[in-house]
Amino acid sequence: MSEARMKHFGWGREGEAMSGEEEGFLLDRYRRRFGVDEFEEKPAPKPQEIELPPPRIAPPASLASLASNDPHERARHTYGKSYPDYVRGLAGDYALAPDVVAYPRSEADVAALLDWAGDVGAAVIPFGGGSSVVGGVEHRLDRARYKAGLTIDLGRMGRVLEVDRASRAARIEAGAFGPALEAQLKPHGLSLRHFPQSFEYSTLGGWIATRSAGHFATLYTHIDDFVESLVVLTPQGRIETRRLPGSGAGPSPDRLFIGSEGILGVITEAWMRLQDRPRFRAGGAVRFRDFFAATRAVRSIAQAGLFPANCRVLDAEEAFNTGAGDGSFAVMVLAFESGDHAVDPWIERALECCRDHGGTPEAVEGADAHREGAAGLWRNAFIRMPYGRERMVGRAIISDTFETAITWDRFERFHDAVKRATETAIKDVTGRLGQVTCRFTHVYPDGPAPYFTFHALGRHGSLIEQWRAIKTAASDELIASGGTITHHHAVGRDHRPWYDRQRPHLFAAALKAAKQALDPRGLLNPGVLIDP
Amino acid sequence: MSEARMKHFGWGREGEAMSGEEEGFLLDRYRRRFGVDEFEEKPAPKPQEIELPPPRIAPPASLASLASNDPHERARHTYGKSYPDYVRGLAGDYALAPDVVAYPRSEADVAALLDWAGDVGAAVIPFGGGSSVVGGVEHRLDRARYKAGLTIDLGRMGRVLEVDRASRAARIEAGAFGPALEAQLKPHGLSLRHFPQSFEYSTLGGWIATRSAGHFATLYTHIDDFVESLVVLTPQGRIETRRLPGSGAGPSPDRLFIGSEGILGVITEAWMRLQDRPRFRAGGAVRFRDFFAATRAVRSIAQAGLFPANCRVLDAEEAFNTGAGDGSFAVMVLAFESGDHAVDPWIERALECCRDHGGTPEAVEGADAHREGAAGLWRNAFIRMPYGRERMVGRAIISDTFETAITWDRFERFHDAVKRATETAIKDVTGRLGQVTCRFTHVYPDGPAPYFTFHALGRHGSLIEQWRAIKTAASDELIASGGTITHHHAVGRDHRPWYDRQRPHLFAAALKAAKQALDPRGLLNPGVLIDP
Repeated sequence: MSEARMKHFGWGREGEAMSGEEEGFLLDRYRRRFGVDEFEEKPAPKPQEIELPPPRIAPPASLASLASNDPHERARHTYGKSYPDYVRGLAGDYALAPDVVAYPRSEADVAALLDWAGDVGAAVIPFGGGSSVVGGVEHRLDRARYKAGLTIDLGRMGRVLEVDRASRAARIEAGAFGPALEAQLKPHGLSLRHFPQSFEYSTLGGWIATRSAGHFATLYTHIDDFVESLVVLTPQGRIETRRLPGSGAGPSPDRLFIGSEGILGVITEAWMRLQDRPRFRAGGAVRFRDFFAATRAVRSIAQAGLFPANCRVLDAEEAFNTGAGDGSFAVMVLAFESGDHAVDPWIERALECCRDHGGTPEAVEGADAHREGAAGLWRNAFIRMPYGRERMVGRAIISDTFETAITWDRFERFHDAVKRATETAIKDVTGRLGQVTCRFTHVYPDGPAPYFTFHALGRHGSLIEQWRAIKTAASDELIASGGTITHHHAVGRDHRPWYDRQRPHLFAAALKAAKQALDPRGLLNPGVLIDP
Repeated sequence: MSEARMKHFGWGREGEAMSGEEEGFLLDRYRRRFGVDEFEEKPAPKPQEIELPPPRIAPPASLASLASNDPHERARHTYGKSYPDYVRGLAGDYALAPDVVAYPRSEADVAALLDWAGDVGAAVIPFGGGSSVVGGVEHRLDRARYKAGLTIDLGRMGRVLEVDRASRAARIEAGAFGPALEAQLKPHGLSLRHFPQSFEYSTLGGWIATRSAGHFATLYTHIDDFVESLVVLTPQGRIETRRLPGSGAGPSPDRLFIGSEGILGVITEAWMRLQDRPRFRAGGAVRFRDFFAATRAVRSIAQAGLFPANCRVLDAEEAFNTGAGDGSFAVMVLAFESGDHAVDPWIERALECCRDHGGTPEAVEGADAHREGAAGLWRNAFIRMPYGRERMVGRAIISDTFETAITWDRFERFHDAVKRATETAIKDVTGRLGQVTCRFTHVYPDGPAPYFTFHALGRHGSLIEQWRAIKTAASDELIASGGTITHHHAVGRDHRPWYDRQRPHLFAAALKAAKQALDPRGLLNPGVLIDP
C-alpha cells in the first residue's frame, strides 16, 4: 500500500493532524475557558516505546497469510477512539492488545478464522475502521474463559461487488471505508450518502453493526433504512437475508443484526439502498436569539413532512466554539437536496417555519450556500473535530460528547436537567467550571436527537476517573429523564450500565438466547450489549 | 352493546352485506369470465346448525367474568378470513373452535389469562379483529401437546389512553379497532392514517403483530415505522420498551415484536406516531396504455423523493374489474396530502414523471379529485371487496389475492412468471381459464409490492384442494423468482412452507431461541412462523 499506515494513537493515518492554526484556535479557546496560561503537556509514547504483552496464540500455517502478530498492528487495534482510549494510549497502556490481528479477503477466510478461534478458545472482535467511542473493539476479556483475543479487521474486503441501477442498490463488502465506497459508486451516478463524522475512517460493516447515523438529519437518519439485505457469518454458519424492498414476513431478520455490534456474527456484505447524486440544493443558516425557539422551529419543520437533508441546530455556545456564531445566537443549519427536482418550495416552507419562531436567515445566496457562511464554518469544524482529541488529551483537557434522543414533550426539561447534571459534575470533579453545549444531529417528527459536548480541565493521572465521573453523572440523568443512552454512538462496553437499565430485561433474555443459538461458545465480542 | 354482533361467517357484523347491485355486478362479471349461466349455490349453515366440539376446559371462577364458552363466540373465533376459512365455514366444519374465548379489560387480566393457560396446558392465540388471511388465529394444534385452545380477544381494550400533542403521539390499547381509534384521535386534530383494507374490522395490536401495511403507498407503508414503543405481555413477564423518537442502542427491541404474530407475547398497548389531519390534497388517476410503462412511471416517482400518499397502479384487467377502466388501459391512482402545505409542486413533478412514460392524467379537477373518477371508483371497490367473499364461496368461485415485493431489476420478469404460473395452475386444476390481475399496493425506491388477484371456478367438495393447488403454484413461483411470500398479509400457518424457504435457517434458530426465553412452554400461537 502506498498510503501511510494508520496511526496507533490518534485519528486517521500517520502524518495527518490538525494544523498549527487549528490547534492554536482550540487551545486559545480553552485557555480563556479555564482561565489558565498554559497546559501541562504529556507526550504520547512513540511506537517503539510501546510494550505489548506477548501474544498467547499464533495463527496456524493455513491462516498465516491473513493474520499477524505485528506489534504496530496489535497496538493500533487495541482501542477505539473514545476519550478513555486516548488516555490509556497516552499512558502507554496496551495490556488489552489483541493477540492476533487477521485480515480476511473473503467470506471463506472469515469462516476459517471463526473456526480457528473456536478451536483455540479465542474471543473474536470484528473490526471495521476502529472508530468506536464506546469500548466496542477492545479485548476486555474474562481471561479464565478466553485463551486469547483475535481481532478480525475487515479492511481488505472493501469492494462494491454489484450495482443494480434500476433498483438503485449495490452489493458492497462490509470492510469498505466511506471514501472508497463512494468512489466506486460515483461512476454509476449513485451515492450511499451516509456520512457520519467518522466517514473517512469507518466502514459499511461498522455502520450497520452500530446503527450509525449520517448525513441526513431527517428521514434516513440511521443506516438501518438503507440496508436491503445482509450476509452475516456466525460460528454456526452463514446467514443471507433475501433482497427485498419491503417485507412483512415475520420479524425482520436484518433488524436483528443491525445494531448487534458484533455479538451475533460478522457482517461480511450488504445490499445497500442508494441515492441519486444531488443536482439541486438549497440551504443556509438561520439565526435564533433563543435556543428553544430554534428547537421549536425544528419541530415544526420535522412535523411538516418536508424532509430536509440537513436540519441541525447549534446552541449559541456550540455555534461560537465552531466559529459559526458570536455566542449571542443559536444557529440552524438547513439544507434541502434532490437528484430529481428543484427544492425551492421545500426550503421556502421551511424558512417560513423558522420565521414563525423568530428565526432570521443568514444572507448567503447561491447554490453553494450550504457550504458557506455559518453552515460552512460549522461543517468544516465538524469534519476536523476528530483530529483534536489526540492533541488535547496530552494537555489534560477532558473533552467528549454524548448523544441521545427524547420526545418533544420532554425535551426542554430534559435538556436543562442533562446540561445541569453535567456542569455540576464537571465542577465537582475538577474543581473548575467547564462547559456543556448542545446541538441536534438528527430530528424526527416525535423528537430530536440532542448531542452534547463537554469540556473540562482535568489532571494527568486522574483523567479516566474524572472523565468517568462526569460521564456517569450525564448518563444517569439521560436515563432518569427518559432518554436513550445512545442515538448512534452504540452501546459497546462503556454504555452497558445504562443500556442495561434502558432495555427491557426480557428483551435481553431473548437476545442472549438468540446469541446462544448463533454463537454457542460466546466467542463474539464478549461483554458488548449483554454478558455472553 | 347496541351494535349487532360480529358474524360467525363472513365479513363484519350481522346485517352487513354487499348490496344486490354489488353482488349482481360481481356475478355478471364471473358469468362472462367463466362462460356459465348459473352457479351451483350452497348456503352457509345457520348459527343453530353449527356443531362445536365440547369445550375441554372452563374458566376458573376468578376469570369467569372475562371468559366464555358461548357457542357463537367460539364459532366466530374459529377462523380468520382466508379463502379456506370460508370454505370450512361453508361446510360447517368448526372442529378447531377455541375451547374458551376470553376478553381481558386490562394488562392484569391478560397476565392472569396467560398464567391460567400455563396451568391447564392450553395454547393461547391473541386475537384482534380476526381478519387474518393466513391461518394466523386458528387452533391447528398438536392435541397431544396442548390440552385445549384459549383465544384471547383484545377487543375490550380499545382506548386511547394518552395523547402527546407536542410529539404527535398517543398511547393506545392494542384492541382498538380502526374507526374507534381514529374517532378518539380526531378531537386532537391527529390521525394514525393507517388504513389497511381491513381497517374497520382489525385492531392496532393485530396491525403491529402482523406488520400490516396501510394507506401510505410510499414511505410509511408498514405500521412498523409508526411504533414508538410497545408493551408486550409474555408468559415470563412484562416487556415495556422505552418511548424514543429514534435510538441506536442495540438491535431494536420493538422490531423483534413487530411481526411476531403472537408467538412471543401479547401486545397490550403501544405509543404510536401520529399525523396531522391532511388539509391540502392533490391527486387523481393517470391512464397508461401499457402496464409496464405505468410501473416505470411509478419507479421514477418512487425514486424522486416526492413521497406521494397514494401511488398505486392497476393493470388493465384489474382496472376493468373494479370499474376504474374499460380494460384497455392501466390506471395509476396518485395522491399527495399534507397537513402543512399546498402540494402542487409535488403533484406537478409526479405528473411529469407520468408523462415521461406516456401517462395521460384523467380530467378530474378539484380538491376531491382523489375521491372521484377512476380513483374514486377503485377506492369504493377496494373498501367493499371483503364483503364479496362470503357471497362467492357458496357459488364455488375461488377468488383470492396474494402479495409480495421484489426489486425493480427483477420486476417485469417476475410479474410475468408469477402470472403465468398462476394462470397455468388455474387451468390445470379447474379445467377452465381463470383470471390473474396485478396491482401495486405500495412502492419503494428499490422495488414495488405487487398484489395479485385471481379468479377461478371451482367445484364444491374440492374447493380447498383446488385453492391449495393454485396457491402452491403461485407461492412456489414467488419464492423461486426472488420475492417474499408476504409483503403485509403475514405468515401465519398457511405461508409457512414458503416462509421456511425464504428466511435464513439460522434466523429461525435465533427466533426459536428467543421464543424459548419468553414462552418456555411454547403456549403462544403454536405453529405460526416457527415450530415451538
